[in-house]
Amino acid sequence: MEESESGRGVASATISNGIDDGANGVVAEGDEEQVVTPWEVAGKDGGKIDYDKLIVQFGCQKLNQNLIDRVERLTGKPAHPFLRRGVFFAHREFDKILDAYEKGEEFYLYTGRGPSSDALHLGHLVPFMFTKYLQDAFKVPLVIQLTDDEKCMWKDISIERSQYLARENAKDIIACGFDISRTFIFSDFDYVGGDFYKNMVRIAKCVTFNQARGIFGFVGEDHIGKVSFPPVQAAPSFPTSFPHLFGQRKDVRCLIPCAIDQDPYFRMTRDAAPRIGYLKPALIESLFFPALQGESGKMSASDTSTAIYVTDTPKQIITKINRYAFSGGGDTVEKHRKYGANLEVDIPVKYLSFFLDDDAELERIRKEYGAGRMLTGEVKQRLIEVLTALVVRHQKARAGVTEEMVDAFMAVRPLPNMYG
Amino acid sequence: MEESESGRGVASATISNGIDDGANGVVAEGDEEQVVTPWEVAGKDGGKIDYDKLIVQFGCQKLNQNLIDRVERLTGKPAHPFLRRGVFFAHREFDKILDAYEKGEEFYLYTGRGPSSDALHLGHLVPFMFTKYLQDAFKVPLVIQLTDDEKCMWKDISIERSQYLARENAKDIIACGFDISRTFIFSDFDYVGGDFYKNMVRIAKCVTFNQARGIFGFVGEDHIGKVSFPPVQAAPSFPTSFPHLFGQRKDVRCLIPCAIDQDPYFRMTRDAAPRIGYLKPALIESLFFPALQGESGKMSASDTSTAIYVTDTPKQIITKINRYAFSGGGDTVEKHRKYGANLEVDIPVKYLSFFLDDDAELERIRKEYGAGRMLTGEVKQRLIEVLTALVVRHQKARAGVTEEMVDAFMAVRPLPNMYG
Repeated sequence: MEESESGRGVASATISNGIDDGANGVVAEGDEEQVVTPWEVAGKDGGKIDYDKLIVQFGCQKLNQNLIDRVERLTGKPAHPFLRRGVFFAHREFDKILDAYEKGEEFYLYTGRGPSSDALHLGHLVPFMFTKYLQDAFKVPLVIQLTDDEKCMWKDISIERSQYLARENAKDIIACGFDISRTFIFSDFDYVGGDFYKNMVRIAKCVTFNQARGIFGFVGEDHIGKVSFPPVQAAPSFPTSFPHLFGQRKDVRCLIPCAIDQDPYFRMTRDAAPRIGYLKPALIESLFFPALQGESGKMSASDTSTAIYVTDTPKQIITKINRYAFSGGGDTVEKHRKYGANLEVDIPVKYLSFFLDDDAELERIRKEYGAGRMLTGEVKQRLIEVLTALVVRHQKARAGVTEEMVDAFMAVRPLPNMYG
Repeated sequence: MEESESGRGVASATISNGIDDGANGVVAEGDEEQVVTPWEVAGKDGGKIDYDKLIVQFGCQKLNQNLIDRVERLTGKPAHPFLRRGVFFAHREFDKILDAYEKGEEFYLYTGRGPSSDALHLGHLVPFMFTKYLQDAFKVPLVIQLTDDEKCMWKDISIERSQYLARENAKDIIACGFDISRTFIFSDFDYVGGDFYKNMVRIAKCVTFNQARGIFGFVGEDHIGKVSFPPVQAAPSFPTSFPHLFGQRKDVRCLIPCAIDQDPYFRMTRDAAPRIGYLKPALIESLFFPALQGESGKMSASDTSTAIYVTDTPKQIITKINRYAFSGGGDTVEKHRKYGANLEVDIPVKYLSFFLDDDAELERIRKEYGAGRMLTGEVKQRLIEVLTALVVRHQKARAGVTEEMVDAFMAVRPLPNMYG
């Protein structure tokens, strides 16, 4: 019998009580463990997230060079920088997706967003930029879930506000360049189709409250809306939730690109899948995008100085990068020239490693800056150029997204160009 | 601030720990309290249900003669025997419904059924017969919820089976004579409209897991589908769940006729209603229909000798009544003539008090039988006549219910003749 994935060292407050079968719960006694749930990301003792440890805790796999090479071979294209540079660093059965693709079998992509504020920041763009790359490279259909119900249940906002935010966020998502002939965007409050609710019920029957508490850290004081939500996020993993795309087919594989904090939902989903006659969804999971103040800082919607937003002006970008981006450079020019920059903590270099496409230039910057030959100011200047170009491009694209386009992406319809 | 209704002495296993504010938790120490939840009905120490006590425990009101007189006056029709004879014996704000009706304001009826077996028994018919009377007397629209999702979550049956049973049960419900121009029947798996899901979310946000545990007796080992269900049963209490009937109106009152074991759902709903901008649904609640073996017996779908089913043949009815209907008559004819029958425990008389329309005849039987002048065999003979007529009439009506009629009742459509 296959081992339960949800049972594995859950990365929540309960980890210290978790199942320790050697492979998982790596808990040092007396320490404050790192906590990663869809609602909380906190490193051990307030420090950085230990991603290698997270992989062990969650029981997923490291995405190795072999798989990246295979992606390049199968798609005939260079791998996305997010793949080459380990931004998407972990997976569950991504190899099976590649096997299926190699055999000419169909799969689809599923990603999503919880609409929480008007403006997205750069970290929000990461999964969408990567998903667009996957869609273009593999020529596959994509479903994007806007969890307006989740946001309304976790935050004190009205349904109307949550739906408004979902629609505004949809415009930013569309601005990332998705192919409308292969993309279906839906809001939980609005979309109900096919087996969506039935799949929710099927999944819910597989998860006890105690298990949900273990996976998500629910407590008795949480309202039952929260407890009801995990099956909503799980349901799009199964093709029968979208009969306008897949009819009654149960054999279409699903690949979910997401940040690794979403892993708990899909561990649960993968445990349930074979019990209810579905294939397990595969996952490809990213690091968290760091705050300007550094990796142990937190990007906060209420403190706009912690992140670059897609709505920022070029002037705001200059100010934020120059003023807030945590530097690993030396305290003085003299010390910097002598000891070089600490690239491990330097935010400008980290941001460049996400968004500077040119591998050679990135390598040169890392080398020169690390050796102290390049100054923080110069690196920040290059980052400002890169981000300004990105943000201006995004703003231009978003300005072109009309209400009609949103309606078109969100229409329940067959996709004319799903594969090929 | 209004007192919480859900917080009142919950009639579940937790009652002994319940809030005792004098008005409610009437708990005699050391005793096994009566337990009434939607899934369990058990009298104290295995005995009969104490309905007066239940009213106090639940915090609902006794339906008094004043209200019955008012119903007759307002509708210009004699009250249904179920009203006159105390089968529907308790209520919550039924007086407000009558106030509204008197002022010419609109209300609607909501009842439902959890489809659990092919055949309904007589107890299942009680709320539907009474609801039909209310619909005819007040000329109001009616929504009937088939909780196929609930049954699939509580029982080990497939979604397909549960949906099949829902449709079969719908035929029996339609056979009760509902007016198609005023009745909308829907299955939870199939119907999604308007604010139904939004109302579920609104309600769920008002109820913590701990509260749900108190109201419904959930435990940590229950799957999260069960925990998610109460808002599904609550949602039809609000008119915006049915925009094809009520548009966006929030001011249409809802009256729910049901057996009193469903009260926990609607206590919860009534607590939530004002917090989310809705009127509280009113309730009119019935006694439980007793098993053939007596009031402390349990009607069981797996033991067909415990109830009369709407599918029973006249021969089966004769056999069941003669063989199983618990008699309060004397052990011997001699003793019976001398002491009379114990009407408190006599099932034939109880069944007649549900289904014999003629008040005078019922009174005569009670008097003659109670005095020992009428024998059990004679009472049973009369009951057999009454039930056979009822069942044959039902079977004839059901045979006339076509698949097209089911489709028509379940079509999401405006009702042409809602009021008037």
